Amino acid sequence: MPFVNPQNGPIMVEGAEKGDVIAVHIKSIRPRGPNPRGTCCMIPQFGALSGTSLTALLSDSLPEIVRKIDVDEDGVYWSKRVTLPYKPHIGTLSCSPEIDSINTLTPDAHGGNMDLPDMGPGSITYLPVQTAGGRLFIGDAHACQGDGEVCGTAVEFASTTTIEVDLIKGWQIDWPRLENEAVIMAIGSARPLEDATRIAYRELVLWMEAEYGYDRWDAYMMLSQCGQVRLGNFVDPKYTVGAAITKKYLAPEGV
Amino acid sequence: MPFVNPQNGPIMVEGAEKGDVIAVHIKSIRPRGPNPRGTCCMIPQFGALSGTSLTALLSDSLPEIVRKIDVDEDGVYWSKRVTLPYKPHIGTLSCSPEIDSINTLTPDAHGGNMDLPDMGPGSITYLPVQTAGGRLFIGDAHACQGDGEVCGTAVEFASTTTIEVDLIKGWQIDWPRLENEAVIMAIGSARPLEDATRIAYRELVLWMEAEYGYDRWDAYMMLSQCGQVRLGNFVDPKYTVGAAITKKYLAPEGV
Amino acid sequence: MPFVNPQNGPIMVEGAEKGDVIAVHIKSIRPRGPNPRGTCCMIPQFGALSGTSLTALLSDSLPEIVRKIDVDEDGVYWSKRVTLPYKPHIGTLSCSPEIDSINTLTPDAHGGNMDLPDMGPGSITYLPVQTAGGRLFIGDAHACQGDGEVCGTAVEFASTTTIEVDLIKGWQIDWPRLENEAVIMAIGSARPLEDATRIAYRELVLWMEAEYGYDRWDAYMMLSQCGQVRLGNFVDPKYTVGAAITKKYLAPEGV
Amino acid sequence: MPFVNPQNGPIMVEGAEKGDVIAVHIKSIRPRGPNPRGTCCMIPQFGALSGTSLTALLSDSLPEIVRKIDVDEDGVYWSKRVTLPYKPHIGTLSCSPEIDSINTLTPDAHGGNMDLPDMGPGSITYLPVQTAGGRLFIGDAHACQGDGEVCGTAVEFASTTTIEVDLIKGWQIDWPRLENEAVIMAIGSARPLEDATRIAYRELVLWMEAEYGYDRWDAYMMLSQCGQVRLGNFVDPKYTVGAAITKKYLAPEGV
Repeated sequence: MPFVNPQNGPIMVEGAEKGDVIAVHIKSIRPRGPNPRGTCCMIPQFGALSGTSLTALLSDSLPEIVRKIDVDEDGVYWSKRVTLPYKPHIGTLSCSPEIDSINTLTPDAHGGNMDLPDMGPGSITYLPVQTAGGRLFIGDAHACQGDGEVCGTAVEFASTTTIEVDLIKGWQIDWPRLENEAVIMAIGSARPLEDATRIAYRELVLWMEAEYGYDRWDAYMMLSQCGQVRLGNFVDPKYTVGAAITKKYLAPEGV
Repeated sequence: MPFVNPQNGPIMVEGAEKGDVIAVHIKSIRPRGPNPRGTCCMIPQFGALSGTSLTALLSDSLPEIVRKIDVDEDGVYWSKRVTLPYKPHIGTLSCSPEIDSINTLTPDAHGGNMDLPDMGPGSITYLPVQTAGGRLFIGDAHACQGDGEVCGTAVEFASTTTIEVDLIKGWQIDWPRLENEAVIMAIGSARPLEDATRIAYRELVLWMEAEYGYDRWDAYMMLSQCGQVRLGNFVDPKYTVGAAITKKYLAPEGV
Repeated sequence: MPFVNPQNGPIMVEGAEKGDVIAVHIKSIRPRGPNPRGTCCMIPQFGALSGTSLTALLSDSLPEIVRKIDVDEDGVYWSKRVTLPYKPHIGTLSCSPEIDSINTLTPDAHGGNMDLPDMGPGSITYLPVQTAGGRLFIGDAHACQGDGEVCGTAVEFASTTTIEVDLIKGWQIDWPRLENEAVIMAIGSARPLEDATRIAYRELVLWMEAEYGYDRWDAYMMLSQCGQVRLGNFVDPKYTVGAAITKKYLAPEGV
Repeated sequence: MPFVNPQNGPIMVEGAEKGDVIAVHIKSIRPRGPNPRGTCCMIPQFGALSGTSLTALLSDSLPEIVRKIDVDEDGVYWSKRVTLPYKPHIGTLSCSPEIDSINTLTPDAHGGNMDLPDMGPGSITYLPVQTAGGRLFIGDAHACQGDGEVCGTAVEFASTTTIEVDLIKGWQIDWPRLENEAVIMAIGSARPLEDATRIAYRELVLWMEAEYGYDRWDAYMMLSQCGQVRLGNFVDPKYTVGAAITKKYLAPEGV
């Protein structure tokens, strides 16, 4: 700290300008090196079940613990007792904000440290472009992560990640969005956590209205019946939530 | 309001006393009546994307809308365009609190209006007993509901629900818990939403420590890799979150 | 716990019915007994700078400390080093809610454990009547208290309190209000703390509009220049905030 | 937006380096120009009683209103009915953060848009130095402001402000602090509002322990009896709270 998380970039995208969207297709995430291992740790004044620099208390910190975990494409070897599935994804992905320069621990409207397990191979993340060239950053690979990243860290590992970047001209979005084979997902980052959830659901309602022929109130009421919420992180300086809907409900009317 | 949600009870459980747990097995939930329909509505000053009586603003309310939806065991017929799966569950389930008398709109440590889609057929909900006989209440059946019940209501319907009630003597739990074939889940209800999530994850860590042979910090760090979060409601006077872990990770050490 | 705070009542007010207001004039609060002392304590899992039952963490509790403090009408003898001024007030004051029965640790729209230092001699508290007779409760006297009652307790003491109760027919208010020589104050209780503040400010805007001839937006913008905020408690199950305006700004137009 | 608030700087302070503190003494704030006027406005998606870009709702915005107010050193001439006292102060004051570049709408540990009415003539603000030279910024003068700046803006005006800057070597503080004739005040900025309050009170406890000979728990319990809370803003991307104690309680033991 404060130099987490490691990032690659800026990647300049030719022709990108404010009001466009950069689409990041994640093609593959593979463990790197001969004996790939991930790291998970408990860090003083960090994590969801501890006093932190933001939820400032007078109680003692939890113990500091650093743990190494063997990883390959078949599993995350957490302990003798438990092998977790290998579900790699990108923790931190962003275009540059317009005027701020935000540390890579913090997610916000530009993307950043969202820690969404959905951001794995097969996903497309849509990021609003705020500056010429977009100035794309990517890093913070996770071999797997639970909802909320509750202790503050995932299985953080060195990976070889292959992405493909598209530029979508003239698509005005205020917050990042994600898509995979099954769902479309709007993403919000804020504190308190309900505000992150509000952003995500509002953006999803507006997306359904703008691009899928839904009436605003129909979309709102229907998401009350079938919306899916993913808690990305609730440990970072802003919490991240994705609100999603299954693609089959988006088929054009009359189909 | 203020007399929502409809409840059946109190059901007195013989021998139940403070320090016990009542386990509610939901066997089946079937639509009731000849032409079963559910109701979904937008209510002024209620819902997650609106000013409310608690998040008090000076802006106008969203419009009031009431909608009727045909329901049978094959589907929830939302619109010509969309049929949602029939996923019935119980919205409000509780034992009586020790000294308070809490309206059925509010979830808390006693259970209440948790609005968790997981509380359907095949699930067991564990409720802490606070008073002699437990004084069990049940009601508020939903034909389906999305994560967070964002507009404020699910597809609320009349159902015939069959439950089986067990008494577990001498199991001290502070918050409701749930179990189904796939997971165990601890449940917290609070505002802001991160506090509900904290309660749920803390209770899950303590559950894994007390009954599944996990070291506290191992459980905490492992949930950071494989914990599952369900947002029940973020519209009620307290928000409800379930934190869950897949049962296969709970198999005894050495098995 | 859970039987805090001590209360006197219910006091039935003849003729009071839903839609009225009970006005509680606090005439005097005097220490009781020959050697009056107050008590202040740090309680495990309680207080603003500690993990609590609602902000549930895995860290250890702060130490439990109980402290006795001599009190008379000249001062609160905190330590050899510090004598604090005697500023007595009532911590918990309410009419009964309509259908809930709420513990005396919790403030809400009915009043309850608001812990507002302004509720001292010379103040009038207006409570919405929800049930026939109002069913007034009063208790939890404090010899003094800081903003927010940060460690969880004030100098709690035995007092002789004299009040006068008026009934105001047909005044519909949603939340408690307070008045003294200097200000009028609207009171909100909720979590997170911004929601309590929103309630208090919204009620104050609506009060200025309804009874002091202010345009709504003028009131809102003017409070942005001269509104006064009192943090009552931020340790109870709901936090309490008062929003106030100096009475001289309420003089009728043209005066 | 996003280029609010206007700032002067960076002012380089010779010899300042990480681990030092820059003390900003505000000597005077005078209205500038021949017919000084301030501006107050209601801005769509901004303000405490409105849906915002962070508390994202589907309701309509409040109306946009811009208002000009005559100002001189005798008063703020709000309306024919109301003249408010001239209580000038600085809304935005900071040293540069270590690695982030944060917009001037946002307060944080570096200071920034705190909007504390206490930051007027006679006050000293202590800012942690994070970079060589400190890189001090100042701006956003207010002719007066209420607690919380509820509609989103104060009486924003052009001023001539005279400051004196001191460098305090080797004083490690994590958040800004303030001092005037009457009190010392620790300042926290965060969301939700209770987290800002927690930061402020924790920093005040630690300050009393480190520099005024207080035992930690004594300080914590005593602030529960005499702490003073100022709500700076609850409209900015982070809310700001000051927690203060009267200086007379800080006199050395035995005095």
